[in-house]
Amino acid sequence: MIVETKSAQFDSIALEGGATLTPVEVAYETYGALNHERSNAILITHAFTGDAHAAGVAHDSGKPGWWDNMIGPGKAFDTDRYFVICSNVLGGCRGTTGPASLNPATGKPYGMSFPVITIRDMVRLQKMLIDRLGIARLLCVAGGSMGGMQALEWASSYPEAVRCVIPIATTWRHSAQQIAFNEVGRQSIMADPDWNGGEYYENNKPPARGLAVARMVGHITYMSDESMREKFGRKLREKEKFGFDFGVDFEVESYLRYRGSQFVERFDANSYLYITKAEDYFDLTNGTGRLADAFRTVDTRFLVISFTSDWLYPSYQSQEIVRVLRRVNGDVAYCDLQSNYGHDAFLVDVGEQTELVRGFLDSTARIAVAA
Amino acid sequence: MIVETKSAQFDSIALEGGATLTPVEVAYETYGALNHERSNAILITHAFTGDAHAAGVAHDSGKPGWWDNMIGPGKAFDTDRYFVICSNVLGGCRGTTGPASLNPATGKPYGMSFPVITIRDMVRLQKMLIDRLGIARLLCVAGGSMGGMQALEWASSYPEAVRCVIPIATTWRHSAQQIAFNEVGRQSIMADPDWNGGEYYENNKPPARGLAVARMVGHITYMSDESMREKFGRKLREKEKFGFDFGVDFEVESYLRYRGSQFVERFDANSYLYITKAEDYFDLTNGTGRLADAFRTVDTRFLVISFTSDWLYPSYQSQEIVRVLRRVNGDVAYCDLQSNYGHDAFLVDVGEQTELVRGFLDSTARIAVAA
Repeated sequence: MIVETKSAQFDSIALEGGATLTPVEVAYETYGALNHERSNAILITHAFTGDAHAAGVAHDSGKPGWWDNMIGPGKAFDTDRYFVICSNVLGGCRGTTGPASLNPATGKPYGMSFPVITIRDMVRLQKMLIDRLGIARLLCVAGGSMGGMQALEWASSYPEAVRCVIPIATTWRHSAQQIAFNEVGRQSIMADPDWNGGEYYENNKPPARGLAVARMVGHITYMSDESMREKFGRKLREKEKFGFDFGVDFEVESYLRYRGSQFVERFDANSYLYITKAEDYFDLTNGTGRLADAFRTVDTRFLVISFTSDWLYPSYQSQEIVRVLRRVNGDVAYCDLQSNYGHDAFLVDVGEQTELVRGFLDSTARIAVAA
Repeated sequence: MIVETKSAQFDSIALEGGATLTPVEVAYETYGALNHERSNAILITHAFTGDAHAAGVAHDSGKPGWWDNMIGPGKAFDTDRYFVICSNVLGGCRGTTGPASLNPATGKPYGMSFPVITIRDMVRLQKMLIDRLGIARLLCVAGGSMGGMQALEWASSYPEAVRCVIPIATTWRHSAQQIAFNEVGRQSIMADPDWNGGEYYENNKPPARGLAVARMVGHITYMSDESMREKFGRKLREKEKFGFDFGVDFEVESYLRYRGSQFVERFDANSYLYITKAEDYFDLTNGTGRLADAFRTVDTRFLVISFTSDWLYPSYQSQEIVRVLRRVNGDVAYCDLQSNYGHDAFLVDVGEQTELVRGFLDSTARIAVAA
């Protein structure tokens, strides 16, 4: 499945913070075919550092999509049956308008003059794309981590436009600890002199060191204590005893340094700032804490999935969603999947997840046909 | 209890890595009085960023000691009864020889020419101090976190010189996740251009931004998800709605920034590098994984304490110690104390800990008299 990223342009989008972005572009990919009734479309929403390339093999780089183990013929999101769409989020750096995009008013990249955006803004732009594609009602919106926040926001903002949502390894609002980890990443980037107030595009000298450190922290939170022990333990890196210096001693150090430096090649530091901010602002209740209100008009079906070893988005956050949905007689299935992989489980430990998603989509599609 | 930090000098110390440090100085404080039999001495070992000022009020700064709630007349470590000693660790920056100390060979601060040290080296220097004070056998060595590693090392290296040890919220070897968090801190410091290969003393311009970010990560790991929720939640800082900018929005952001900048005033970045390295190298079994061997000659009594919400030094690591000690018929008491405070619990949630320590010291002292 060779795929190509497409692009859609819109004149403008009004943002939750009050600003208007003019114009706005969305990068997206599609897999499978839209049926005649336009009833088999599924929107996949990506996590923090993901992009529109969710599945298949990119025609240019040859790289597989980030959820290729879940999307494709015969897979959980079966492209023989469903029309699957994935778009890069607003504020991103992979084809959708973000801080690295040219500001038409100045002819220069926005940098920190880009307006602060929210999860709701990301979803609004996705809705514009779906409208453009002529889809009145999605069969499903599904995603993990920040993708799960978007799925929840879809159910809350556009319940009439989505038959079911699958929020995975996510939360209905960012906790103090989740905000804290994001703040560390932001401070690390902004502490790097090369960040230069967000203006590093012209001299092409991004805050590589600060961004790499931010990414290292991220990687720790994506794994579990146990998966790090299994993968690295105290194994030394290409040596038999300690170096008694500050070079690499342990495999885990080498892994983090590599992941940090690799990340700099593919991600924009300002997008890191804006997207983490959107996550931190995310609260489906707008600060009221009354989650039942967010789902008041819901006839959307929910499949909520969490993972036992995920300590970044712990299971109790998913269970809070499930508890409230049950209280308002929502149609909700929930599974806390056993996994050692921590938060990464939704990307790598997809066996049981596949079974759950496949069955849930199938039953939703049958209900849709009957309706 | 007004206290003053004292200092002891030694000609040299031979280090585990092969180097010899000449000369070496130790900063220490004492509280209470040594009895005639010299049998009531307790060594308190401090955590990563602690120092010799464990209790009382510093005569110069007026600041209370870092464990003043545990050490003093009538407290857990009762200074009416025991002679309590606390020294700053080797490699530290609070009076004991470390990378900021003058290298007599050059007349300049060691910086990164300071030799890499280990927990065993720290303990060796403590043993030299105890010998100097004329104490053949300590009643107890007690400490939390890295202090607990030192207590374990005492029991393993000098079992004849200590009647009991109290390792709290600690581990017998650093895990991949623990190494990973330390590595992030080190990379954050070394990414700061002001670190300058460790040579920042002469122009008095330390890597303040990198060190602050390292400290922020640390603070997240010291608290629990729950204690962060209770203390900060999603409370905004001096505003009623989001700023839609990159200033401070949340209380937790303000707290982390404040703690980060405050830390720079009192801690040396190179000491951060050396001490975290010592923690990461720490493995009581020297890589064999056979913990029973480390305790082979033990007739030392153990009181092992962990805290239910401590995810930085999780309870299972303490339980591994306890399990092995029981297998070799060691004299060990263990308690997993219920607390929401995370790793910080050993510093702040000291009610039950006080009862445990008091009773254990009392019974050990009675056994010592009977012996």
